[in-house]
Amino acid sequence: MKLVLAVIQDADAAALVRVLSENAFEVTKLASTGGFLREGNTTLMIGVSDERLAELKRHVQQTCRTRTRLVSPSVPMGEQGEGLAADPVEVAVGGAVMFVMGVQEFVKV
Amino acid sequence: MKLVLAVIQDADAAALVRVLSENAFEVTKLASTGGFLREGNTTLMIGVSDERLAELKRHVQQTCRTRTRLVSPSVPMGEQGEGLAADPVEVAVGGAVMFVMGVQEFVKV
Amino acid sequence: MKLVLAVIQDADAAALVRVLSENAFEVTKLASTGGFLREGNTTLMIGVSDERLAELKRHVQQTCRTRTRLVSPSVPMGEQGEGLAADPVEVAVGGAVMFVMGVQEFVKV
Ligand code: NI
Ligand code: NI
Ligand code: NI
Repeated sequence: MKLVLAVIQDADAAALVRVLSENAFEVTKLASTGGFLREGNTTLMIGVSDERLAELKRHVQQTCRTRTRLVSPSVPMGEQGEGLAADPVEVAVGGAVMFVMGVQEFVKV
Repeated sequence: MKLVLAVIQDADAAALVRVLSENAFEVTKLASTGGFLREGNTTLMIGVSDERLAELKRHVQQTCRTRTRLVSPSVPMGEQGEGLAADPVEVAVGGAVMFVMGVQEFVKV
Repeated sequence: MKLVLAVIQDADAAALVRVLSENAFEVTKLASTGGFLREGNTTLMIGVSDERLAELKRHVQQTCRTRTRLVSPSVPMGEQGEGLAADPVEVAVGGAVMFVMGVQEFVKV
């Protein structure tokens, strides 16, 4: 058995918890308030059998993969309300890190 | 030394923290907001010497054991206010999982 | 690679997160609400290479070392408002514990 601590973006948390729950993984969500580098992150704690570790990693990679999104920069309006046209810019979202750790003993009460 | 991550029900958290503290275990309570399967759970992080691991497990098992409670289902009132008598039903409460992990080094500052 | 779980005082958290971030450590702050013995504590989760573990420990020791602070006890005022002079007392602050754990696999998505 392994314990996986996964740090993911808040924006991906609901989707990943749903996918993992539908696939019968047991997930506990720890409230994490990011440090300077980790604002907006969520930490998930997942107990997983050795046999299902690869499947777990696949779900995290598919749901949280780094991707870009086009965002239109907000542009100040002119006095008559006519906005200036600005090109949308690519912003990176997603990404995750996973720490896989050995479990010496798992106890269910 | 071991690090034990225990996921227990919110309803058992205060009692377990009290018992562990009275027995000189050092407990840190992580705020955990359950995923789909784990609504209402609390995660405790407990550092424990190898010698006291069995005692710790005993405390968790005694305090968080799965048990049933009789709950009277709420019954809609009739128009004249006469409630229908309904049999109480058994509801399972309690339960816990513990991940026991090896600690390579413990540092106290 | 190691995963370090550090339990420190709330009062030291901002300073330690800043120092670690400036030194390119990746820190995730878990919201922890102390048990009886750990009121006012913060738990940090830090992934670190074996090579940088000693440096990480040094930062925690320097920022969170146990130290004393002089505190003037609050003294009830007399009826005419003349406070009694009371000697300041030494109060211990700081301190930390670190659990260093092996990581079997580290995955970055
Ligand atoms: Ni699946
Ligand atoms: Ni005991
Ligand atoms: Ni440094």
